[in-house]
Amino acid sequence: MRWSSYYQTASRVFHEYPSWSKAVVVCTVISSGGLVAYGDARPVQSEFGNEIPKKKVVVLGTGWAGTSFLKNLKDPSYEVHVVSPRNYFAFTPLLPSVTCGTVEARSVVEPIRSITRKRGASVQFSEAECYKIDPKNNKVYCRAVQGKKLGSAEEFSIDYDYLVIAMGARSNTFNTPGVQEHAHFLKEVEDALRIRRTVIDLFERASLPSLSAEDKKKLLSFVVVGGGPTGVEFAAELHDFVHEDLSKLYPSIEKYVKITLLEAGDHILNMFDKRITDFAESKFFRDGIDVKLGSMVVNVSENEISAKERATGQVVSLPHGMVVWSTGIGTRPEILDFMKQIGQINRRALVTDEWLRLEGFENIYALGDCATVNQRRVMEDIAAIFSKADKDNNGRLDLKEFREVVGDIIERYPQVEIYLKKNQMKDVANLLQKSEESSLTADIEYFKDALSKVDSQMKNLPATAQVAAQQGAYLADCFNRMELCEKYPEGPIRFRGVGRHRFRPFRYKHLGQFAPLGGEQTAAMLPGDWISIGHSSQWLWYSIYASKQVSWRTRMLVVTDWSRRFIFGRDSSRI
Amino acid sequence: MRWSSYYQTASRVFHEYPSWSKAVVVCTVISSGGLVAYGDARPVQSEFGNEIPKKKVVVLGTGWAGTSFLKNLKDPSYEVHVVSPRNYFAFTPLLPSVTCGTVEARSVVEPIRSITRKRGASVQFSEAECYKIDPKNNKVYCRAVQGKKLGSAEEFSIDYDYLVIAMGARSNTFNTPGVQEHAHFLKEVEDALRIRRTVIDLFERASLPSLSAEDKKKLLSFVVVGGGPTGVEFAAELHDFVHEDLSKLYPSIEKYVKITLLEAGDHILNMFDKRITDFAESKFFRDGIDVKLGSMVVNVSENEISAKERATGQVVSLPHGMVVWSTGIGTRPEILDFMKQIGQINRRALVTDEWLRLEGFENIYALGDCATVNQRRVMEDIAAIFSKADKDNNGRLDLKEFREVVGDIIERYPQVEIYLKKNQMKDVANLLQKSEESSLTADIEYFKDALSKVDSQMKNLPATAQVAAQQGAYLADCFNRMELCEKYPEGPIRFRGVGRHRFRPFRYKHLGQFAPLGGEQTAAMLPGDWISIGHSSQWLWYSIYASKQVSWRTRMLVVTDWSRRFIFGRDSSRI
Repeated sequence: MRWSSYYQTASRVFHEYPSWSKAVVVCTVISSGGLVAYGDARPVQSEFGNEIPKKKVVVLGTGWAGTSFLKNLKDPSYEVHVVSPRNYFAFTPLLPSVTCGTVEARSVVEPIRSITRKRGASVQFSEAECYKIDPKNNKVYCRAVQGKKLGSAEEFSIDYDYLVIAMGARSNTFNTPGVQEHAHFLKEVEDALRIRRTVIDLFERASLPSLSAEDKKKLLSFVVVGGGPTGVEFAAELHDFVHEDLSKLYPSIEKYVKITLLEAGDHILNMFDKRITDFAESKFFRDGIDVKLGSMVVNVSENEISAKERATGQVVSLPHGMVVWSTGIGTRPEILDFMKQIGQINRRALVTDEWLRLEGFENIYALGDCATVNQRRVMEDIAAIFSKADKDNNGRLDLKEFREVVGDIIERYPQVEIYLKKNQMKDVANLLQKSEESSLTADIEYFKDALSKVDSQMKNLPATAQVAAQQGAYLADCFNRMELCEKYPEGPIRFRGVGRHRFRPFRYKHLGQFAPLGGEQTAAMLPGDWISIGHSSQWLWYSIYASKQVSWRTRMLVVTDWSRRFIFGRDSSRI
Repeated sequence: MRWSSYYQTASRVFHEYPSWSKAVVVCTVISSGGLVAYGDARPVQSEFGNEIPKKKVVVLGTGWAGTSFLKNLKDPSYEVHVVSPRNYFAFTPLLPSVTCGTVEARSVVEPIRSITRKRGASVQFSEAECYKIDPKNNKVYCRAVQGKKLGSAEEFSIDYDYLVIAMGARSNTFNTPGVQEHAHFLKEVEDALRIRRTVIDLFERASLPSLSAEDKKKLLSFVVVGGGPTGVEFAAELHDFVHEDLSKLYPSIEKYVKITLLEAGDHILNMFDKRITDFAESKFFRDGIDVKLGSMVVNVSENEISAKERATGQVVSLPHGMVVWSTGIGTRPEILDFMKQIGQINRRALVTDEWLRLEGFENIYALGDCATVNQRRVMEDIAAIFSKADKDNNGRLDLKEFREVVGDIIERYPQVEIYLKKNQMKDVANLLQKSEESSLTADIEYFKDALSKVDSQMKNLPATAQVAAQQGAYLADCFNRMELCEKYPEGPIRFRGVGRHRFRPFRYKHLGQFAPLGGEQTAAMLPGDWISIGHSSQWLWYSIYASKQVSWRTRMLVVTDWSRRFIFGRDSSRI
């Protein structure tokens, strides 16, 4: 990804000279935009003239994965048809900001048609949902999401040569009763808008002259379920909105506001470093946000939410005016249907290989939150690896033989590299060398033993925008070089087959993660286990988020929104 | 009104030096904001210390009239309670721009709480609707507009000393069947947002691959009913949106778009000068907007609209994807109920005297679109006027006597002044003087005869934002000086009573009117019958509309929106 290098430089600069952070912001916004503009302006390679019909690519979804694929697909020899119920891409990391009007909804969305318009490939878009995939006949069945004004004309099917499934996930209720009916999710732009309206509604209702203090308290009890980055950021945003803006307009009822965060685990932000978790918990304590750890919600009703406290085993009920449910993702029903159809039972998402290809299918790809990469275990292939490496077939591997395949092994099984790093082995040869003195040849048993712990380093990828975006860009890059790599494969040796894989497998590069905590403070976990908490990370956050916007338009709008918020505060009109 | 002087200066400058217009824009935006800021910063006169309880003023409505009243009420001796189903003020003249995203909805609204926060008077707001007024007991009954979560607690009553009714009007369907169900109005912010979503919906539906050309045509047939300024501006905005922005993203279906404007009268914009009407009609003709004059809509169904053509008497049906209904205003049901209750039957709105006081009530005022001023005829009072003027009671009026009361006559009966101007009489004495030589005294018959044609100059005020805003400011001014004017009345003589009226009656100053026609062209009818059409009026329009914004926040947002539209076009994401 284009941003990785910028990001790393910025992190380094920032690390070494923290006071530069604000200058970085400006430079980022300008330089990154410039890069994009440069990208936009590049002339499209047109290699027409041959009569080969264009390959049809159907893309399902316009979220991070699908849009990143479309943005990076440059080869004009594809005919792309995008199907999604949303005709826009939404910059979802800013959704918590949209809930309180820190940025406007329109500032974080960009029509998918204008994103694809300037790309090389010819792209068609249909605002519809795919309700059935027929992989035998290479067909998807779709229908319009809007009303049925035109009857049957609103259903259609599309043929494909390649299918890219990037339909995302839905919020997971863990089948908790009442959540679907009485809680707000925070997954789509509409959710964020609904939350914003509800917050204002509650403040207006609580201002009515006929209400008792009891009623006002009930209405202004906000409960956030889930202490992940989204839940935490929403709680922080809401706190700021209430105490920075609403307190001025509703001074008499500010005292009734109560924000509670329920987390089933032992800590909030548990995917972050302990220092960040501690900081966040104590900041929330100072802010008066009530964080209840070890609280598992068992029921949500119209006016009450009940949670079981792990420490005491008791079920405690809280009154609420609004519940926001943000406990992670679950599988979409269409994806579940498709999984049943192709025999992928009891998985949480579509299973792909390391090339993002749906297991069992040559021409279907799945990426983003609706997919999971099934990483191959070294131990599964250990015999094949050994025999491929043992070129002279003498039953023993010497250092020379090992050195020849080790690059392919590391490429095919990334856990090997992580294992080496973790154990501070500079040279892969160390793997075979139990002590300085030991023999430099190994038989299969020795080899197995040496690699036996490697697979423990395998990790599932997190369900984040970053993973989805990198997957989309990776797949587009493969599609761009499909023909080339068919002839000159660039991937690792096929240990169980013949020749090489066409492409290198997908590798995720973690670029860090932010957790905004309100009051212009952000916690950041950056590459190299570097932790940053406070106002300067907030500026880094502004900088990165502005630069990552999908278009110059949204970039300008987001920056304007932030400036407007600084000057005028957040708007509280109920529209 | 504060703006009138600016406006007149600007018009003059603009008239004399048309090329200055763009400079005026900048100056306006800056200087006007400055004025507002200055107004905001003025210290409130606090004359507490006396034990008189504060007078309770209840204001119903937060539209132009109500908000203007609240903005201008400076006397801290009132306790104001505002009740409105909308917790914000909307700058309605920009609603047609909101329908196509030329400006965003949030840019034209400002929370009523932040408008009133900095004013002198203490203001409380309740988001509720008033469903009953009890003028005998000085009470209004209200209920919350949102869901019924809290049961009976959401109904309440408020006592008042003064009641200001400014509830506005609703769209008038003239009881045409199907309008309520199948047409869009353009009166509230929500309407504009709904129209915007529908336009994008229709373009997305028409892009579905399964649709026939016939279906696409049906979907993309937009029908606007009503050739007033709102309907015309919406048609023009829609045309620009389609051909400037959507055509780039939906190139294959642009050709199916058809915009039709149905007007029952002989011309569109019939309240404007003939030159403007002609220009608008020929511009629309060039743009391909089909203007059907003399077409009276008789029925609207889900997919068709039927209109009776006056020329042929035939009923013609058109298919439609969307109908926007903008044919003028009607009375709100709550107002109709109240009118029945107080015996004002068969009127289109609440009838007030020239001081905006509801006829028959001392402490109830009605202004804006829900009210109409019942102007007094000179002929009704002619005997009283004569006897008041005839100080020496000799049955004849001489010039001296006449001169003494003529100021009061003109103040009380503004039609006299209009009549004088129309007949180019420089001196009022001319009224009594049929020829240079004739006697300068008059008896009652002669006096009646001289004034007999004066009442023909009476005109109802138009139902515009300008009238409502001026009424609100006028009434606030009266409230600010209530005590003072009780002691020292400043109004004209009471011809039928004793002494003087407390206040001068309300006088409307027409500051001109705009009709944006699309393609950066606007028609303007300015004071002094000066007509301006074209790009320079568009700049004047930008200038005036930016300066008239209710706050610095909305002013900045509107200007940013315009800039954004110039650079990036309008957004077409379906949110």
